[in-house]
Amino acid sequence: MSYRLYYWTGLQGRGEFVRLCLEDAGAAYTDVAREEGDEVMTAFLEGNQEGALPFAPPFLTSGRLVIAQVANILQYLGPRHGLAPESESRRLYAHQLQLTITDLVAEVHDTHHPISTEQYYEDQRAEAKRRAKDFCESRIPKFLGYFEQVLERGGGKHPLREHSYVDLSLFQVMAGLDYAFPKTMARQNLPLLRELARRVADRPNIAAYLASERRVPFNTNGIFRHYPELDG
Amino acid sequence: MSYRLYYWTGLQGRGEFVRLCLEDAGAAYTDVAREEGDEVMTAFLEGNQEGALPFAPPFLTSGRLVIAQVANILQYLGPRHGLAPESESRRLYAHQLQLTITDLVAEVHDTHHPISTEQYYEDQRAEAKRRAKDFCESRIPKFLGYFEQVLERGGGKHPLREHSYVDLSLFQVMAGLDYAFPKTMARQNLPLLRELARRVADRPNIAAYLASERRVPFNTNGIFRHYPELDG
Repeated sequence: MSYRLYYWTGLQGRGEFVRLCLEDAGAAYTDVAREEGDEVMTAFLEGNQEGALPFAPPFLTSGRLVIAQVANILQYLGPRHGLAPESESRRLYAHQLQLTITDLVAEVHDTHHPISTEQYYEDQRAEAKRRAKDFCESRIPKFLGYFEQVLERGGGKHPLREHSYVDLSLFQVMAGLDYAFPKTMARQNLPLLRELARRVADRPNIAAYLASERRVPFNTNGIFRHYPELDG
Repeated sequence: MSYRLYYWTGLQGRGEFVRLCLEDAGAAYTDVAREEGDEVMTAFLEGNQEGALPFAPPFLTSGRLVIAQVANILQYLGPRHGLAPESESRRLYAHQLQLTITDLVAEVHDTHHPISTEQYYEDQRAEAKRRAKDFCESRIPKFLGYFEQVLERGGGKHPLREHSYVDLSLFQVMAGLDYAFPKTMARQNLPLLRELARRVADRPNIAAYLASERRVPFNTNGIFRHYPELDG
């Protein structure tokens, strides 16, 4: 079965969390908008297709299933590719951690768009500066400190004591925050998260993906954006 | 099996989405912080309990399971109480819709706290006014228009063609937005959502709950807050 992933072209964005999972699994997939054009994706968003109606990309199709929302997609893919724990309690925990990552990613987005998604960054710079200050001083330590604690409780190597899609997403969070907020990140003391991110980057399929052209570089169209004035 | 729900006292907040599910199901549960005090909840947040580490309330315990994040809790409770569809495709859709509600709720929160969760509303009023304007003009129509379309595709009565936890959450969204943004809501044309909210309010267990003291009135400590200056 070949998956079809629908996400905007030209940026990593939220789609990247799904891509990392598909790449690590070695799963066959079509990156639809990149390979076939935006309009194939738009048809779903306009309701011209059967099945679930996505609110926004990314979404994935698997046979006749249409699955939207990153955490929902990962929860679907994880068990099919050995990237989720076996027990119900750990699957619930994996999903909870992924949803906490979702919350963090939304806050990252709002550092550069604190007023409106539909206005330019340049039109909300003053507010962005205030929000990013709080994000760097309070939220990064709170979220990453939490994940560091989760790793510690899990024995140090994996949040769920074994490799899972959550490891891949934590790698992406660290990579994105390092790009967007290098000064702030240099001040954090997160030995377990750092080590986890290194181990994920060294996984053969991930290393091959990161070295490929499929990995779009971070840029100021994505969720993680580097604006030096926002890096407290 | 009796559930234990952990959430802040004195407000509906995110805990209310779980409460509505438990109440509709007629499930036995202890509202822990209200009945036994905050410190029982804090022990979990500080990591002094076994099992999953919650990032924030609400969380639910069911036997030895610790489940955090509203959508994760509802996904767990739904199938156990006849409040989720049977098929995998519809369960994935239910969860996707719930996660979209989660996104909307976060945006509602940020209308009054666009800069920092840890600062008072009074210290971010100017930014709140700008963000709320965008929320009322763009985001309410976009999100609620989406759910109206989902209802239409589902035959008009339920997003998933049968009663589910998503119906209960949509009722809460409508009630909360009506409280917080009455002028803006009066301008929306949402016949199917309106009718859904009325039907949910008339369900015997929900009607009894809404008339009870367990339903804390909306207030300006919760997620949905009525500040007239923010209601465009």
